Amino acid sequence: MSKTEIVRLSVSDVRFPTSLEQHGSDAMHTDPDYSVAYVVIETDDGLKGYGLTFTLGKGTEIVLCAVEALSGFVIGKHLDEIVNDFRGFYRQLTSDGQMRWIGPEKGVIQLATAAVLNAVWDLWARSEGKPLWKLLVDMDPKKLISCIDFRYITDALTEQEALDILLKGQEGKRQREEQMLEKGYPAYTTSCAWLGYPDQQLKQLCTEALSTGWTRFKVKVGADLQDDIRRCRLIRQMIGPSGTLMIDANQRWDVGEAVTWVTRLAEFRPLWIEEPTSPDDILGHAAISKALAPLGIGVATGEQCHNRVMFKQLLQASALQFVQIDSCRLGSVNENLAVLLMACKFQVPVCPHAGGVGLCELVQHLILFDYICVSASLDNRMCEYVDHLHEHFKSPVIIRDAHYMPPKDPGYSTEMLEESVRRHQYPQGEVWQELQSPAKRARPSAHS
Amino acid sequence: MSKTEIVRLSVSDVRFPTSLEQHGSDAMHTDPDYSVAYVVIETDDGLKGYGLTFTLGKGTEIVLCAVEALSGFVIGKHLDEIVNDFRGFYRQLTSDGQMRWIGPEKGVIQLATAAVLNAVWDLWARSEGKPLWKLLVDMDPKKLISCIDFRYITDALTEQEALDILLKGQEGKRQREEQMLEKGYPAYTTSCAWLGYPDQQLKQLCTEALSTGWTRFKVKVGADLQDDIRRCRLIRQMIGPSGTLMIDANQRWDVGEAVTWVTRLAEFRPLWIEEPTSPDDILGHAAISKALAPLGIGVATGEQCHNRVMFKQLLQASALQFVQIDSCRLGSVNENLAVLLMACKFQVPVCPHAGGVGLCELVQHLILFDYICVSASLDNRMCEYVDHLHEHFKSPVIIRDAHYMPPKDPGYSTEMLEESVRRHQYPQGEVWQELQSPAKRARPSAHS
Repeated sequence: MSKTEIVRLSVSDVRFPTSLEQHGSDAMHTDPDYSVAYVVIETDDGLKGYGLTFTLGKGTEIVLCAVEALSGFVIGKHLDEIVNDFRGFYRQLTSDGQMRWIGPEKGVIQLATAAVLNAVWDLWARSEGKPLWKLLVDMDPKKLISCIDFRYITDALTEQEALDILLKGQEGKRQREEQMLEKGYPAYTTSCAWLGYPDQQLKQLCTEALSTGWTRFKVKVGADLQDDIRRCRLIRQMIGPSGTLMIDANQRWDVGEAVTWVTRLAEFRPLWIEEPTSPDDILGHAAISKALAPLGIGVATGEQCHNRVMFKQLLQASALQFVQIDSCRLGSVNENLAVLLMACKFQVPVCPHAGGVGLCELVQHLILFDYICVSASLDNRMCEYVDHLHEHFKSPVIIRDAHYMPPKDPGYSTEMLEESVRRHQYPQGEVWQELQSPAKRARPSAHS
Repeated sequence: MSKTEIVRLSVSDVRFPTSLEQHGSDAMHTDPDYSVAYVVIETDDGLKGYGLTFTLGKGTEIVLCAVEALSGFVIGKHLDEIVNDFRGFYRQLTSDGQMRWIGPEKGVIQLATAAVLNAVWDLWARSEGKPLWKLLVDMDPKKLISCIDFRYITDALTEQEALDILLKGQEGKRQREEQMLEKGYPAYTTSCAWLGYPDQQLKQLCTEALSTGWTRFKVKVGADLQDDIRRCRLIRQMIGPSGTLMIDANQRWDVGEAVTWVTRLAEFRPLWIEEPTSPDDILGHAAISKALAPLGIGVATGEQCHNRVMFKQLLQASALQFVQIDSCRLGSVNENLAVLLMACKFQVPVCPHAGGVGLCELVQHLILFDYICVSASLDNRMCEYVDHLHEHFKSPVIIRDAHYMPPKDPGYSTEMLEESVRRHQYPQGEVWQELQSPAKRARPSAHS
């Protein structure tokens, strides 16, 4: 590995016109064009690593600009130099004396960090000839710990506590790995009930999902209470009393409003309300959790939780009952490891956020590692699944009987098809050129 | 005003090579090149508005990219259309269905929002022929309230409560305005004790400051405890027992470390410890506040507090004893109004962050308004002052006897000298061209 110097980094703005069909629509994001900032790094011996971060269309060019600003930290580095002091490398990217001002560790710059580091982890896993989850599972606990920046979280989790968790996780690890290879990791689906879908489409999609083994369903809520009641009733009727229902407001409410609104939906027995309010409102989530606990409804959040310091506080304040890590919002695998270990210490289940473009492909690796080496439990745990855009990936997720089957190809499942990248580049790719031609102009949101 | 349509927006990357002299150096930002993303908007009748956000050099180009992404919301709008529904306009900028994903309301995109809205406020004040503070002071309380987005803060401050505070603030307002015009708003200085300054320079600057009426001094700490002890002792000896000393760690510590370290500096009787840990760590600041209260040391933070939701929680959790608003980190005047009103309700004094490039020029307007119309108190209140780079502004701050004298020129004091902007544009301005010429190459950090 020692000869492997990273000599090139390129980044592309890849957008899919999903708003045309209302895929991905929710109470706050009514017309997303699912997109990625797509990073490719290349070594002097011809190995490539692929990384991405997910976006909703407009603004992806800003993330590209941030990736370019970070590229100087990567180009010229040897892979072994990075992974032998991954904590130090992580700190370089996230704590540059000038650049941290425009973060720190949040928003655009953290999304860019995720894209770049996801590419580095992909490169590392490929160089070892393993899928990322397997690289993590086989890694010495001390080495794993050396990838984590513990700054600002030692009051909740010390390095020694983290190591102890990982050492304990070594027990029974082989059996759990075999179990995963055989049965996969349980999933739930969000594909049936986007906010913009009419009832008929909801019913049809739900029927199809039930027939292929899905038992856990998430419904988008928060725009109109009467609509929510009707849609939740419809889904609950279709999935029956034993099916699992989750609801997701995508930050639509203030604290008081969240409690009132969700109380009105309690009769449909949702397992959780997801993102009831601002992702920054730790104390607000704590208040909502407390108010909804008597109704048996938990609070889930995390897809817009921007770093480990925020997750630390959500856990300290008992502000969430389900931790939704995201493979592209946090600072890549490094920061996700910190969150998995904190969640384990606080005994809160991790149920990853997925969907978008590539989020399922990436996050499956992390949750497999969580089960095999950290939590060792499937209680109240499942990984989100959305059936969009997988066809653009070289190693798309494999779902069998509503379970994620562990990927076998080396890497982090981040590589996209060259053809897909080329066609969807914004604005010059042919998909966008066609949409912007006069005949198609009338379509909403097809261009930013 | 109705004819005033905004027809143009331009943005420039303006950087000053302050790292050459260690100005602005602290425990986390060792070599800042003080910079701005500088926005100019122009109306069809030739009026201009100037806005900026402060940065530390590298990454300013990312903020520019974000400003360009926001420009579509501004160009083509009439000024009266904006100010007649400023809350709605604010929401458009901060909650675009696609773009909010890369924030929301934090980091790069919020800094860009600040730059753009600061220009709009400057334009508004100029169109009324008033300095911004006076525009605010004269404004009907209901109109002021209509500029604020209360989303996510109604559990701490309702619209009615905010209005009541402003109505109460009308009493005695004229006298307080006269008092400010005569005596100015009290200031403290950070210019004497940057971390990179040797002791001899500290002494000399402190002597000069004392001779011109300064009595309140801030010292940068956090890199080395023995150095901190020596420097604090030196400053305390020079300013005497009645002088006010503040210390600032710029986020250097974890929670436990912050308590231990500051306890060692308690003998020098600092009024506050500023930014002891991560700006995102509300519960951490609360723990530090609690531990230091018996020592009579308060906690101050805010310059990297990214939005009103974070300030709300800092107040709810009694996590800070001094609220340090920033004119460019939050979403311009609109979001700062929300924070001033929340601070008033929670009875915590506001002591603004300033310095950088233009921060003193801008924030003086906000703190004048706070005194005249909101807090009506000077107890434990003062505004930061740093004596750098004012010469690049058309209406630089006027300090008299360690007080900010209210600006009289129309606008938000945001306009820079054309010559300064031209010479410091990065990388093409002549200042940077010279620094990058072979003869100067050896200098550290002169180019990003």
